[in-house]
Amino acid sequence: MAENKKKNLQVSFLPSGKKVTFQKAISLREAIIKAKIDFSFPCGGNGLCGKCKVKVKGNTNPPSLKEKETIPEWLEKGYRLACQTILYGNAEVEIPVSSLISTLRILTEGSEEKFKVDPFVQKIYLSLPPPTLKDQISDVARIKRELRKKGFDQLKIDLRLIKKVPFILRESQFKTTVVLNNKEIINLEEGDTRGKNFGLAFDIGTTTVVGSLIDLDTGNRIATKAILNPQTIYGDDVISRVSYLQNNSKGLLNLQRKIVGGINEIVDYLVNSTGVKRKNIYEITLVGNTVMQHLLSGVNPLNLALYPYVPVTQDPINLKSYRLGIKINPLANIYVFPNIAAFVGGDTVGVILATEMHKINNKTKLAIDIGTNGEIVLSHEGKLVAASTAAGPAFEGSRISHGMWAQDGAIEKVRLKDGEVIIDVIGGGRPTGICGSGLIDSISEFYKEGIIDRSGRIKPVKEQSRLWRNRIVEDEEGGRFILWEDGEKSSIFISQKDIREFQLAKAAIYTGIKILLDKLEVKRENVEEVLIAGAFGNYINLESAYNVGLLPKFPNSKVKNVGNAAILGAIKALISRKSRQEAEEIPHLVHYVELAATTNFQDVLTDSIFLGEKESNNS
Amino acid sequence: MAENKKKNLQVSFLPSGKKVTFQKAISLREAIIKAKIDFSFPCGGNGLCGKCKVKVKGNTNPPSLKEKETIPEWLEKGYRLACQTILYGNAEVEIPVSSLISTLRILTEGSEEKFKVDPFVQKIYLSLPPPTLKDQISDVARIKRELRKKGFDQLKIDLRLIKKVPFILRESQFKTTVVLNNKEIINLEEGDTRGKNFGLAFDIGTTTVVGSLIDLDTGNRIATKAILNPQTIYGDDVISRVSYLQNNSKGLLNLQRKIVGGINEIVDYLVNSTGVKRKNIYEITLVGNTVMQHLLSGVNPLNLALYPYVPVTQDPINLKSYRLGIKINPLANIYVFPNIAAFVGGDTVGVILATEMHKINNKTKLAIDIGTNGEIVLSHEGKLVAASTAAGPAFEGSRISHGMWAQDGAIEKVRLKDGEVIIDVIGGGRPTGICGSGLIDSISEFYKEGIIDRSGRIKPVKEQSRLWRNRIVEDEEGGRFILWEDGEKSSIFISQKDIREFQLAKAAIYTGIKILLDKLEVKRENVEEVLIAGAFGNYINLESAYNVGLLPKFPNSKVKNVGNAAILGAIKALISRKSRQEAEEIPHLVHYVELAATTNFQDVLTDSIFLGEKESNNS
Repeated sequence: MAENKKKNLQVSFLPSGKKVTFQKAISLREAIIKAKIDFSFPCGGNGLCGKCKVKVKGNTNPPSLKEKETIPEWLEKGYRLACQTILYGNAEVEIPVSSLISTLRILTEGSEEKFKVDPFVQKIYLSLPPPTLKDQISDVARIKRELRKKGFDQLKIDLRLIKKVPFILRESQFKTTVVLNNKEIINLEEGDTRGKNFGLAFDIGTTTVVGSLIDLDTGNRIATKAILNPQTIYGDDVISRVSYLQNNSKGLLNLQRKIVGGINEIVDYLVNSTGVKRKNIYEITLVGNTVMQHLLSGVNPLNLALYPYVPVTQDPINLKSYRLGIKINPLANIYVFPNIAAFVGGDTVGVILATEMHKINNKTKLAIDIGTNGEIVLSHEGKLVAASTAAGPAFEGSRISHGMWAQDGAIEKVRLKDGEVIIDVIGGGRPTGICGSGLIDSISEFYKEGIIDRSGRIKPVKEQSRLWRNRIVEDEEGGRFILWEDGEKSSIFISQKDIREFQLAKAAIYTGIKILLDKLEVKRENVEEVLIAGAFGNYINLESAYNVGLLPKFPNSKVKNVGNAAILGAIKALISRKSRQEAEEIPHLVHYVELAATTNFQDVLTDSIFLGEKESNNS
Repeated sequence: MAENKKKNLQVSFLPSGKKVTFQKAISLREAIIKAKIDFSFPCGGNGLCGKCKVKVKGNTNPPSLKEKETIPEWLEKGYRLACQTILYGNAEVEIPVSSLISTLRILTEGSEEKFKVDPFVQKIYLSLPPPTLKDQISDVARIKRELRKKGFDQLKIDLRLIKKVPFILRESQFKTTVVLNNKEIINLEEGDTRGKNFGLAFDIGTTTVVGSLIDLDTGNRIATKAILNPQTIYGDDVISRVSYLQNNSKGLLNLQRKIVGGINEIVDYLVNSTGVKRKNIYEITLVGNTVMQHLLSGVNPLNLALYPYVPVTQDPINLKSYRLGIKINPLANIYVFPNIAAFVGGDTVGVILATEMHKINNKTKLAIDIGTNGEIVLSHEGKLVAASTAAGPAFEGSRISHGMWAQDGAIEKVRLKDGEVIIDVIGGGRPTGICGSGLIDSISEFYKEGIIDRSGRIKPVKEQSRLWRNRIVEDEEGGRFILWEDGEKSSIFISQKDIREFQLAKAAIYTGIKILLDKLEVKRENVEEVLIAGAFGNYINLESAYNVGLLPKFPNSKVKNVGNAAILGAIKALISRKSRQEAEEIPHLVHYVELAATTNFQDVLTDSIFLGEKESNNS
């Protein structure tokens, strides 16, 4: 042991060439965090998602059981899960290119600007001269004087922190780290705490709440966690939540408490699984639809649901975490995104920010964010228009018999082939339900195989191909198709009712796209780029999306799956001052289109219920 | 009655020529408030102080009993107390020139600038177009859009207020008054509430807390109330309060609660006695010594009492009233003055601001603020220096047998003549104690009449003049002099111990003045102006002050009594943006002198204990 302590061991990372040294055994995860590498542990370091897979050379612990389950085929190629690996000596680690910054790069391909990590929150270490009779200035003035020398002037400081200043200064013998958020001193810490600088980005969906823990110095996404929005017990769409609060005097407070509780649940998970300390989390950026953002802030969203549908505020909201009861640094700023209109919220601002739709050029570009509400943004000839459709929560698993959102155990891909149902399950292993992309795949496959007709009806067993007959169960509610079963114990199926829910949801999206294109008189063949965003676990299969008529075909367009772009927008605004400023400009650039006020809305919607390509529905 | 209601009655004010009309009987006080006349009701409109005396012609109620007691000699000359008078018909009212603005004018005589009422808080009435499908902007954006048209841009609004906005707008049918404090919307009120715009100025002394209610539109001081600082139960000087908090874990909280309670007591009195509504009080400015300001803000002042005596902060503090628990409009700003050093606080900044000592010209000017701490400011050849002396609370009545502060019942003037003791009692009537100016007068008279010697000793009865023998009681503690007695029932006296307390206090002040003059090498004959400030009820008698050796004589100087200049500074900063800005500049202009660090401090102090002029003490 004594010998081990003296050794100076080194781990080198490829392709960056970064190196860190250590004295004794260290987990690879710790080494990655220490090296400030742009890397993520999506499942929080529990060995479940397989996404922290890296190639390791060196003396390590043997692969864990979890690794054998999660990445069996990779182990023999020298890969390990970073979250499960312990390094005993010098090592070389190859990191696959799959970081946040590269994600942003993919999203904004063609953009000339390079994205720069430049967060509002920064740390400055000060070694102050202690006061004397000849230098009697106040404690706060002493700190500000030193900061002025380093170029930071006109700083504010909250009374809550002022109260602690004399104690922190004296306990640290005047050696202290100042945490700045823009023009405000938000914390004072004993000694040199630089490098411990974290933030959180949240996407508050009607159904799903997602939070990411971000290293503010590097822009590295350390971990991500998604949960069901706890407000769901008060209704699974925004309208039912608004009626709940209308009918209950404490409704608004309860809804706010629920979402704050949900955020705290995610914070608990992220700090417990990564070892990052709550006190070192200094800012949150948060996107959501307009109703979610109102509810989180405790602002009554009633008028969003009443004619003529106006928000209380469209401006971004900044407030201290202690005022909301979010358990991170009490003076951390909570930045709630600005919103565009009653039904086009901060989440759409996030999508636009992440995909750079607002950097208007001559390209005709369409972005579709698929969630409980489907928001659609179209950029054409310097104009930016947006609309919202009430898709409902089917894509996030609600109102679907075995629906679940995209997390471990969800069937995310489905193929029917020669009488076999081939499924991909998130995290591998036994399936526990089906998520949005799996649902789209299934219905597309049913349609291709003639299991359902264009109207979405499951055909009677007697009309079915022999290949699938044993999968179909007839019942009073129109029948169902068994995707997976485990003997008598359990099964996962899709019912006629599920298909109907799906049809309503996909028709809403399709209609929104159609009307927006008409609005700017854009023909499908002129669309040059289509971006599909949403909280799907993996990306949706575009062939399936066309086949079921969720999306029209764009013959001359690249179509990109961009994942949860809304939260990427929140992350950008967290780690870049310039992006934050752009987020505040976006609402002024976007023209909102009220779909329901369009004359042919009902006709288009009714038409779009059918499966398959729209054109062929005209017969 | 029916006839009365139809009549349009008028009251005209002289010398301003302002007129207001009314339909039925109105109190003169209401008429004065309605006319927005710069006028004060120092006792809160209770008919006790006599200071709202005005000359009235017209049909009124007969003089009240209180008026007969308070201003008997004035009633026959046509004078009335405005607070006791009811007008039944047309009337003409002559207002004596004794307003706040004229007070400021006297203080700043010779200044070329005219003081302008220009408060941060202002009210703007808006009649907004209600939202439609074609005009769907948010409620807050709707308000801001209209304000932008009126020239108000980049406004902030707190989430607390945002939450109320949709309800206020709809209840008022979009006709609303916006209350602005500088760049922030702090309230939204139904209908047109312009004209109801009030603020408070406070002087938090170690012994006395004084608050004034101010009409922010006119700068009019409506009422003033003084109470004993409730912290006094934890010690009557700052050092004993600091030791209390050092020895009690909840000490800081208790001290803060006490002073907030005291402020609320004054607020209660001011709103109850004037009818001004709490919700219409939108800002407070507050001066105090550095320890009082720290305690009010809940900031631990421990290091102010420990070598090398540094404050936690010197900057002004702005915080919302709800955070302190002061019961006025919850988003009202509390502005705590900046301070200069550990023992020269915001109150001295207030004195400098009120007297314009900071507008440095070539005059040699001295200002002395006499309270529990005596602060001294000297301006000479473009330099501004300040020092603080620990006078103790004797001038405010503490540690004096029958001491009380300057309020109704206090003996404020004393003359001994031909064996008679002639006293002036504040508010007239029966005396209940003696205040600072009465104490100075008494000791001066004792010294002149040979009742005490230069050392302050009460001579034995046998050595006294026959005129006073029956007033002197010998006892084990050095004797006492009976100022007033009511048969056997009660008496008011000054004891040997009281005289000793007084001597310590006056020596401290005298020493401070002497050392500051020496510091800038200023001779007494070169001082051109001396300003005496302090919370004395009436002004101190300068002859008495010289005679006891409280002040040295300045042969070529005008000496002015300026009353409570500290609170006048707070009022200036409340009603003028320019003055607020000056208040923030003053601490950077003043050089602080540590008296105790001056080599001859102890010698000068010991010398100054004697009564009479300093020079003659050198024998």
